[in-house]
Amino acid sequence: MYTGPLRALIDELGRLPGVGPKSAQRLAFHLLKVSDDDALRLAAAITAMKQRTTLCARCFNVAEGGAECEVCLDARRDATVVCVVEDPRDIVAVERTQQFTGRYHVLHGSLNPLEGVGPEELKVKELLARIEGEGIAEIILCTNPNLEGEATAMYLARRLAPLGLRVTRIASGLPVGGDLEYADELTLGRAIEGRREVAG
Amino acid sequence: MYTGPLRALIDELGRLPGVGPKSAQRLAFHLLKVSDDDALRLAAAITAMKQRTTLCARCFNVAEGGAECEVCLDARRDATVVCVVEDPRDIVAVERTQQFTGRYHVLHGSLNPLEGVGPEELKVKELLARIEGEGIAEIILCTNPNLEGEATAMYLARRLAPLGLRVTRIASGLPVGGDLEYADELTLGRAIEGRREVAG
Repeated sequence: MYTGPLRALIDELGRLPGVGPKSAQRLAFHLLKVSDDDALRLAAAITAMKQRTTLCARCFNVAEGGAECEVCLDARRDATVVCVVEDPRDIVAVERTQQFTGRYHVLHGSLNPLEGVGPEELKVKELLARIEGEGIAEIILCTNPNLEGEATAMYLARRLAPLGLRVTRIASGLPVGGDLEYADELTLGRAIEGRREVAG
Repeated sequence: MYTGPLRALIDELGRLPGVGPKSAQRLAFHLLKVSDDDALRLAAAITAMKQRTTLCARCFNVAEGGAECEVCLDARRDATVVCVVEDPRDIVAVERTQQFTGRYHVLHGSLNPLEGVGPEELKVKELLARIEGEGIAEIILCTNPNLEGEATAMYLARRLAPLGLRVTRIASGLPVGGDLEYADELTLGRAIEGRREVAG
């Protein structure tokens, strides 16, 4: 029924995750209704984000403009401890606990053979390369405590075992099957505090 | 925690109706992850829609480029019957029935004193102006059968009464294919109130 630019916008909005056809229509009509300024500010924000936000060359966290992210650029952080997470959003969750002062490494996903995500799709090679070059003494495996996250932690533990560094896994203070992003800082802090050695 | 362009995008997405802080974050990270092409196509679709989609000068339906919408430009439609709706999306719903061949008038909302929406905020003045100029014989009040929609219909009926044209309201009743047992008492009461003669 809708044609032209309105139809095109509904289609584009419908591609977003969790946005069905009805929501896409509702959002498009909202944007039709608001002032030009308001709508174009959203368009400009998307463009600016894509142009100016990059991934940190070292840890693959979100970085602004420069080659490295804020955490990697911070000289006060302990470069010998690296916390491995699945997603840049998980860094925000860990930072909120104020329990961790080391650096990060973002895998950008977790192992999921059913969806064709193997080690090559994640930043695993890059993690191994960092260990040689940066004098890392401990790797904290901070992937989600769900099926894929556990499998990813186990896989990394096996790969890291021969390298002679300390490999730990956050404690299951978090509810199993849960999601790091939604954990409260106390629980997540407790989990970091109670991390244990992993046999490769 | 997030700064710069990513923070700005999360904020803009969070202004959309039905998009909370967590959803805004999820959408922003989705846009961060997808290709530049995909993300910029959404930005371009918003811009194109705002630049090229206007409201019909006659009925305030969505119009593309020109001054009038497709319905108003269609010479085969009956200009003497006007269906008054709250929103352009309602036109799509009515068109789908293939029962209506007249024109429309979009109020762009319904009376809602609690939210400060009075007749001046709706296209009421414009509807009254059309009646004089266009030789309209019947107005069908097709606002939603909820509190605000009913109040709007009652208000318009009162305003239109002195003008000597036919003013009708869409029927309320049980949905076709529905079940008496599951009907709420208001709907069933309205269905009984609006009962019609059946030829034996």
